[in-house]
Amino acid sequence: MNDNIHLALVHFPVYNKAGDTVTSSVTTLDIHDISRICRTYALGTFFITTPLKTQRQLVEQVTRHWRDGYGGQYNPSRKEALTNTRVCNLVAEAIGTIERETGERPQTIVTDARTFPNSIGYGALRETLKKKGQYLILFGTGWGLDKEIMNSADYILDPIAGVEKFNHLPVRSAIAIILDRLLAPGSR
Amino acid sequence: MNDNIHLALVHFPVYNKAGDTVTSSVTTLDIHDISRICRTYALGTFFITTPLKTQRQLVEQVTRHWRDGYGGQYNPSRKEALTNTRVCNLVAEAIGTIERETGERPQTIVTDARTFPNSIGYGALRETLKKKGQYLILFGTGWGLDKEIMNSADYILDPIAGVEKFNHLPVRSAIAIILDRLLAPGSR
Repeated sequence: MNDNIHLALVHFPVYNKAGDTVTSSVTTLDIHDISRICRTYALGTFFITTPLKTQRQLVEQVTRHWRDGYGGQYNPSRKEALTNTRVCNLVAEAIGTIERETGERPQTIVTDARTFPNSIGYGALRETLKKKGQYLILFGTGWGLDKEIMNSADYILDPIAGVEKFNHLPVRSAIAIILDRLLAPGSR
Repeated sequence: MNDNIHLALVHFPVYNKAGDTVTSSVTTLDIHDISRICRTYALGTFFITTPLKTQRQLVEQVTRHWRDGYGGQYNPSRKEALTNTRVCNLVAEAIGTIERETGERPQTIVTDARTFPNSIGYGALRETLKKKGQYLILFGTGWGLDKEIMNSADYILDPIAGVEKFNHLPVRSAIAIILDRLLAPGSR
């Protein structure tokens, strides 16, 4: 139903604590958690992007165990969760894959704490996503997406505002909240 | 602001895959993830409940490192996230602690996939939580809370409905989505 909406968890280029552009490590728990969230909201493909070959192999090994190996018998819902999870090198490869398979270049969406000319609120993006087309929502790990990716995005989604000043959600939690705001059935 | 609303992550009594009532293991990542979510929505206390003494000691050790030890200097936001995180034995102890410290017995809220006479939707619970009083939201780990706890709850919150039939969210993600639905600023 939302199979024209895709998500990418980006491990490069992202910032580290010191503000350098780095490649972050894959957190294996993210593979399961974010796959389960994406399946719950019936997304298209969940791309785990990292330029590190050994990390891509690690993700492939985990997904293979649960999808094709014994894990799928032991826990069928985990198998189902991973159905549309894929590994790729760079964000550009994810965009290219979507374009090749659907014939349409996806519009990209990022989130940021600041406001920009192409910033968009949750209600407006919810309506936009109902329109035809392919969409790719990008989430950065570490201390967030490099500005090069931010600058090339079609939409910049408003941040999740905390109730007081603390606002440091894990990327897993941010993805859950954002997909729920954008795609939960009903008016909320 | 929401300091009259508390949350408990329950490791006993919960069901395992076979439907037996068991004590589940603490997932150390839950300590951080759920603490950060609770701080973002400005909750009162986050209780991690387990009757296993060694598991309580493990949680104490992790929280001490980030709150009082070197971790707090290394990552101050992690320290702040854990400010209101506590370990306790059973749900009854969490209820007793709230009652002792506030002079009021909390009303308890659980979530379930089925509907009951005391079931409540997100909009109605959002309004209820604005009223005076203490509230404790209980989340079960493993395959969910034992029916004894379910039956004693004041409110049973409607489940998070998936878009299609898949609906197996990690407890961490369910907590993020539910607190956002109940407590996010604005009308959503």
